[in-house]
Amino acid sequence: MYRSKESTIDRSITPAPGTDFLQLTVDDAPAGELSAWLARRLRLAISDGRLPVGSSLPATRTLAAELRVSRGVVTEAYRRLTEDGHITGRGRAGTTVVAAPVTTPTPRPSRAPHAPGSPQATPFTREPGSDVFDAVRAAPARIDLSPGVPDLASFPRAAWLRAERSVLSSASAPELGYGDPRGAPALRLAVANWLARNRGVMVHPDQVLVVAGTAQTLGLLAQVLRQEGISEVAVEDPGSLGARQHLQHWQLRTPPVAVDSRGISVDELHACGAPAVLVTPAHQFPTGVVLDGERRRELMRWAAGGGLVIEDDYDAEHRYDRPPVAALRSLLAERVCYAGSISKLLAPALRVGWVVAPPRYHRALVEAKRFTDLGNAVLPQLALARLMESGEMERRLRHMRRRHRMRRDVMMKAIEEHLPGAAVRGAAAGLHLTITFDATFADTDLATAVLGRGVKVQPLSWHCRRPYAPGLVLGYAASAPTDIADGIATIGAALQDL
Amino acid sequence: MYRSKESTIDRSITPAPGTDFLQLTVDDAPAGELSAWLARRLRLAISDGRLPVGSSLPATRTLAAELRVSRGVVTEAYRRLTEDGHITGRGRAGTTVVAAPVTTPTPRPSRAPHAPGSPQATPFTREPGSDVFDAVRAAPARIDLSPGVPDLASFPRAAWLRAERSVLSSASAPELGYGDPRGAPALRLAVANWLARNRGVMVHPDQVLVVAGTAQTLGLLAQVLRQEGISEVAVEDPGSLGARQHLQHWQLRTPPVAVDSRGISVDELHACGAPAVLVTPAHQFPTGVVLDGERRRELMRWAAGGGLVIEDDYDAEHRYDRPPVAALRSLLAERVCYAGSISKLLAPALRVGWVVAPPRYHRALVEAKRFTDLGNAVLPQLALARLMESGEMERRLRHMRRRHRMRRDVMMKAIEEHLPGAAVRGAAAGLHLTITFDATFADTDLATAVLGRGVKVQPLSWHCRRPYAPGLVLGYAASAPTDIADGIATIGAALQDL
Repeated sequence: MYRSKESTIDRSITPAPGTDFLQLTVDDAPAGELSAWLARRLRLAISDGRLPVGSSLPATRTLAAELRVSRGVVTEAYRRLTEDGHITGRGRAGTTVVAAPVTTPTPRPSRAPHAPGSPQATPFTREPGSDVFDAVRAAPARIDLSPGVPDLASFPRAAWLRAERSVLSSASAPELGYGDPRGAPALRLAVANWLARNRGVMVHPDQVLVVAGTAQTLGLLAQVLRQEGISEVAVEDPGSLGARQHLQHWQLRTPPVAVDSRGISVDELHACGAPAVLVTPAHQFPTGVVLDGERRRELMRWAAGGGLVIEDDYDAEHRYDRPPVAALRSLLAERVCYAGSISKLLAPALRVGWVVAPPRYHRALVEAKRFTDLGNAVLPQLALARLMESGEMERRLRHMRRRHRMRRDVMMKAIEEHLPGAAVRGAAAGLHLTITFDATFADTDLATAVLGRGVKVQPLSWHCRRPYAPGLVLGYAASAPTDIADGIATIGAALQDL
Repeated sequence: MYRSKESTIDRSITPAPGTDFLQLTVDDAPAGELSAWLARRLRLAISDGRLPVGSSLPATRTLAAELRVSRGVVTEAYRRLTEDGHITGRGRAGTTVVAAPVTTPTPRPSRAPHAPGSPQATPFTREPGSDVFDAVRAAPARIDLSPGVPDLASFPRAAWLRAERSVLSSASAPELGYGDPRGAPALRLAVANWLARNRGVMVHPDQVLVVAGTAQTLGLLAQVLRQEGISEVAVEDPGSLGARQHLQHWQLRTPPVAVDSRGISVDELHACGAPAVLVTPAHQFPTGVVLDGERRRELMRWAAGGGLVIEDDYDAEHRYDRPPVAALRSLLAERVCYAGSISKLLAPALRVGWVVAPPRYHRALVEAKRFTDLGNAVLPQLALARLMESGEMERRLRHMRRRHRMRRDVMMKAIEEHLPGAAVRGAAAGLHLTITFDATFADTDLATAVLGRGVKVQPLSWHCRRPYAPGLVLGYAASAPTDIADGIATIGAALQDL
């Protein structure tokens, strides 16, 4: 349906000599033994693994044309291999490899680093390394209460497919070429409108840079800041282990600044002397504290005095029992770098986010993005733009909020029942809550014990640099209510035996 | 259809206080003046641009529920704005903004850096900077003969949508979460099979790293090589300007090594003393030379002696008049880093590629990828895996080869007719050919003159470090035959007036 007339006209053209399939050319073939030669080459490819069991052979007509031999040559070669029992079939499924000669080298065992049973399958027993989240993900468990993901089961698959279809039917050919490293104009506009509507951030689409999630934002920003001579970004403590790992990978020091019940301590931020700070004001990770009015003003004064605020607005759209708070970016555009993504709105697997930097950093960020990947893939950007402009995202948000809120309530109730000694924090918003224990055990031991019982949770200490109460970070958004209740009960049981 | 029972159960739950829409909460509202207050807030948002003309307002029922006011309050506010002429509508389309109060700030002019008419609209008149390809892309022209893109008009939109549909219907919820930074297992397997079948490269799927195109491969590799103390990667001369820009951005020096009719000069490579080299052996860019057998052996001896070969296999699948050549990676896995992508097989806009590194670099590359973006987006990887495993890619390749070959022939014929003095190089394969002139003019002047006549071409000198004949790099894959003929005729005319 997308072919032009050409494709019918040019069928007459003789194919290129030889075939890419196994790089075969008849020049290697002894005269008069074409079938035997072809059968040998195929048998070799099957035995050395280039044609694994289950792989398909080209149609005899196609292969004959590409080799410029009579079709009978290929048919005869296939017949021999069929008799040997190496290949089978005809008809619609085509010819496929069913057995390899006994000479087959046994394939190397999969080195998937986190196979169940490998040491990393109990990721809490060691200092968390850069692959610790892979390790947790790969660990076998029947219930996953890891924080950081929304209700993925309700991903709007039908709406996404509709958007993809309309994008594919309307995208121009040039749009399928190399694109704007800043992101597709349609998505930058949609993001600008979204931020104005839902986050109080007024920004021109040209100031929006589309990135592959906030993880990439941190990497790009780190490169730019280091060019500017900034080698230190203060982080919240407790604060995200993952964000800290990213900043450190990009050679930034990350001095910790305490978080209390009102948010990050701006006094301590002043004291530590760092020129920049990474904060999660709308719903602090992991404690869930909301940066209160006075602290917001203090932080803005610190920024107005020359500090750079990196605002990770990772789950601000998810609120239950508190009024909305506009993003800090809306208060001081010159000193706040805003980072958002759809990982918590739709799905992390889409790897789409956006950054709105202070104007002075914008150009350098675009350059960093260009030399990282030339810009995000285009089709998903256009599909997402449609969801954002059509109101589908707001609908999804309202839908998710009901589900998330109910799941949170189920988790709170289960904690009351099974973990009476635990203090709950940060449950008014977001996708996770944090519990702490007035005790002295190592929460990594608890996480290990809980994982041993088939439930994944994150130890709070992963996210703490300085002594803090033992605790757990519990995601409730992605699990069914029954699993949530079961999971919390499991924690209670593990706690008994600790 | 993807909702569980929950969503019906939990409709009873009262919504969170206030609404994310403009961050409105009734706490700010003077008692008894709710409608007037709401109308004021909406009018303000319309006038300051948070609600641009054309944007939608929430349904009255939704907004009333979120604000916890009676629906009449919202209806009344909407009525007032409608009377003012700011908003309109009801019914399915909902309520939308149609006019802003005269106080609207005029929107900042788009700062799209390459708007037609801006200086960069004639990108050949200055030293090519990092955004030169954006500039060319943005320059207005009726015919685009820039190299580097396949026939995008024949992108298999229907097949891609089918693959997306089947992926969306079968992907598990966890697959929508954070994934394996190395890439989806299904795609790594498909790539391993593809490389074995079509490029003679035997590799275990665990050795394949999925990346966002070869541009990203160069950046990741540069980071890893610098960790290893390598600060210099020799490049071909003539050689890709873009690749050179990427290596240089990542602080690698790029000494030039001459390319002659048999490919890169390995003697000169020895002489320059660089520990690594970036080559395009299957179809050298831009000259189109194939690295001949003797040079391949010389290069492999150089690598066996400790050199690292980075093999950019960018368009090897496109052959017309010559037999297939297996990738260098198949000869010396320990010393060759193989980089491939689907930019020339499907479309650059998909931003998917793969790298198969020597084992010693693999782990470090995975880390670099993790801290760049946590891994490619998952859904497109799964869709691509289906196309590669189903044989759809081979079908597309055969289809494209016919079209490309015919378009190349049209270009050759037009060159004979309109550019009798030009020497044609590298036409036996690929998506572009190069012409050189036995003359002394600056090919950037020719490119400028040609662009002035509405045709985009690349000056060969962009890709040359040392004196070389003036010439043009001409892509034929993405243009219709009539445009190709027209474009070449235009070059002939421009040449007359030069």
